[in-house]
Amino acid sequence: MILKGNLLFAPELGKLECLPNGCLRLNDAGVITEICKQLPEDAQAEEVVDYGDKLIMQSFADMHVHAPQYPMAAMGLDLPLLDWLNKYAFPQERRLADTEYARKIYRRLAQDLIAGGTTRVVMFSSLHTDATLILMEELEKAGISGYVGKVNMDRNGAEGLQETTEESIRETERWLEECKRFTQIRPILTPRFTPSCTDELMEWLGKTAVERDLPVQSHLSENDAEIEWVRNLHPDCAQYWETYAKYGMWKKGTVMAHCVHSDARERAAMKEHGVWMIYCAQSNANICSGTAAVRQMLDEGISVALGSDVAGGAHLFMVRVMEDSIRSSKIKQKETGLPFLTTAEAYYLAGTAGHRYFGAKSGFSVGDKLHAVVLDDSRFAVDEGRTLEERLERAIYLAQPTDILAVYAEGKKVK
Amino acid sequence: MILKGNLLFAPELGKLECLPNGCLRLNDAGVITEICKQLPEDAQAEEVVDYGDKLIMQSFADMHVHAPQYPMAAMGLDLPLLDWLNKYAFPQERRLADTEYARKIYRRLAQDLIAGGTTRVVMFSSLHTDATLILMEELEKAGISGYVGKVNMDRNGAEGLQETTEESIRETERWLEECKRFTQIRPILTPRFTPSCTDELMEWLGKTAVERDLPVQSHLSENDAEIEWVRNLHPDCAQYWETYAKYGMWKKGTVMAHCVHSDARERAAMKEHGVWMIYCAQSNANICSGTAAVRQMLDEGISVALGSDVAGGAHLFMVRVMEDSIRSSKIKQKETGLPFLTTAEAYYLAGTAGHRYFGAKSGFSVGDKLHAVVLDDSRFAVDEGRTLEERLERAIYLAQPTDILAVYAEGKKVK
Repeated sequence: MILKGNLLFAPELGKLECLPNGCLRLNDAGVITEICKQLPEDAQAEEVVDYGDKLIMQSFADMHVHAPQYPMAAMGLDLPLLDWLNKYAFPQERRLADTEYARKIYRRLAQDLIAGGTTRVVMFSSLHTDATLILMEELEKAGISGYVGKVNMDRNGAEGLQETTEESIRETERWLEECKRFTQIRPILTPRFTPSCTDELMEWLGKTAVERDLPVQSHLSENDAEIEWVRNLHPDCAQYWETYAKYGMWKKGTVMAHCVHSDARERAAMKEHGVWMIYCAQSNANICSGTAAVRQMLDEGISVALGSDVAGGAHLFMVRVMEDSIRSSKIKQKETGLPFLTTAEAYYLAGTAGHRYFGAKSGFSVGDKLHAVVLDDSRFAVDEGRTLEERLERAIYLAQPTDILAVYAEGKKVK
Repeated sequence: MILKGNLLFAPELGKLECLPNGCLRLNDAGVITEICKQLPEDAQAEEVVDYGDKLIMQSFADMHVHAPQYPMAAMGLDLPLLDWLNKYAFPQERRLADTEYARKIYRRLAQDLIAGGTTRVVMFSSLHTDATLILMEELEKAGISGYVGKVNMDRNGAEGLQETTEESIRETERWLEECKRFTQIRPILTPRFTPSCTDELMEWLGKTAVERDLPVQSHLSENDAEIEWVRNLHPDCAQYWETYAKYGMWKKGTVMAHCVHSDARERAAMKEHGVWMIYCAQSNANICSGTAAVRQMLDEGISVALGSDVAGGAHLFMVRVMEDSIRSSKIKQKETGLPFLTTAEAYYLAGTAGHRYFGAKSGFSVGDKLHAVVLDDSRFAVDEGRTLEERLERAIYLAQPTDILAVYAEGKKVK
């Protein structure tokens, strides 16, 4: 099969490859076999899907998102963090004990992710094993791939939202066993954050991560009060990251959301150990955490990708996440003097960077299964004669999920 | 006629009035005659438009927007300000010499404003008299009311985008004469900003503003380089605002966009003289101007309303402007410690505050012509049982123009 249209992809940070009326040639497994500037001469026998003047872009990877909070996106954001947790986030997460409810909202979430062109995720579930399995089923059914984590939380939870250490271990074991049936969605160990796990649980999680070669996700240095709390809980650790490192969870491929207040030493530890920083620009502003030093981290060689952080972030759509990331970096520039993220850089971070976490090559690459969206920007094309670079920029600011005509994930058409 | 639905309006800053299944009673001129909690008993003879469970909200007022820049919204935002002006803004504004082009883009602009529920504007045109008249025609035809200004610019312009002083005066006279034919759209004097007008032109504009009792709009203290420039041009003025005051343009109802760097003395002058500050949160971030002290200004009693500032802002839709205003005020809180804008406050600023500039009362009020939107939030209602306050918050973060089912402006249904 051959897809024809205006190809736009980001082979490296800040670089944009544009092939007007280019072609992506795929084999039967949906793997890219050729990227060409025009229809290949030997294409006669193949099906050609001609998207005309539309933009064929890389799909998106949402690297930090709380699935159970999706129904409460954009609510309670006038409240201070603790009130928000008590009035909205905890009661909402508690509802996931109901598997029927889980099915309903996770099906909707999976549909909305695909509708917006997000084909890979690193995702938090709640502590409910059954609801987590339902989430994984719904994501896989929708064509999404990536990691989902059953949350571990055996202290400092809320009523009906805390496990005993024994339960947490037993349920995690059961969950990992059940996960074997999935092919595209894999498990990731998920201590909610240091304050919500006892030392015993952290130790078990760290051991399990190493023994079973499982990745780990959590939160890091999101706000000042949290950092202070962690310091009190672990007086033996000089910094927050060390509470993960102490138990063997600070390792290559560990995903840490936020890192708003990570200083030079914490950042050096991320770089040294191959830990990923997930930039959640909108959430950091919405819940008044601060503004992360994303340019500094990129300059220091830390692996960075983007997260919607629903429901700290109100928007699941990664095009919005790109726009917010750019604007947030512009505001940060006033403080640091470091350059803001360009359009091409935000596009790289929302696409290539996330996909690379899962082992993909950069941009569209021969040998990779296709992850792409087809975007129709005619709705906001008031004027003609714009370059593809300009059309990409306008799309990043103005596109809506309804402008995405088609989505390809793992080589298959899923929208 | 009676409109029935969930009424949501902002009678004062921070206060939200919610009438579930309430009614707005209108006379034949579209003036509100009664606001009731349920269908009045004597309503038999009147037409009832029942919007069911939809939200009937106040429409929006965009108090700062550059009409000629609409086709370049969301373009060139990676460029430094001067390159952006030279590569995008100036060439774009020059195109408005072509009246056919003006007709095309201004018709689209007017349609898009109404589609998004913006029923009142304070707007910059370009320096072209004929295009400005076309803009006024198209806005009025779409049902929009408010002020439009032919821009005055007799120095520091660009090739093909500067008038002689004599031309500027003559064309402004002609424009004011022609404006007499409009009923809903009225003229506002518009020196682009101090650096673009000679002292002679400023003097004439100030004199004309007083003699003909015309309002004035311009830019104030948007970025540091601009402020320095103004200081060099007017060494006799201690502060930027005094360059307007010197010529009689610093007066009740004068509209000043941005005011990002207005210090206590400049703010006191705004308060004292009844000058309005237009908060353009997204534009200020997009073009790296800084973050305005909106809470401080409100606390000090300055009249504040919101502007999209297209094309420094990428979005015309005032729902986006509200969201960006809230988020920007949250980031500012980190610096000032002052409270951020709540949902109810942003709604007041986008609706009531702007409408009051034009002489309307607060919220929905008996005696005012109806300015309202009917919003269908069912698309993002994943869960049931939300309060009207919660639904308003979700709408402010998640609504799109396509969610707006109906728009009333000056008492007439215009969408």
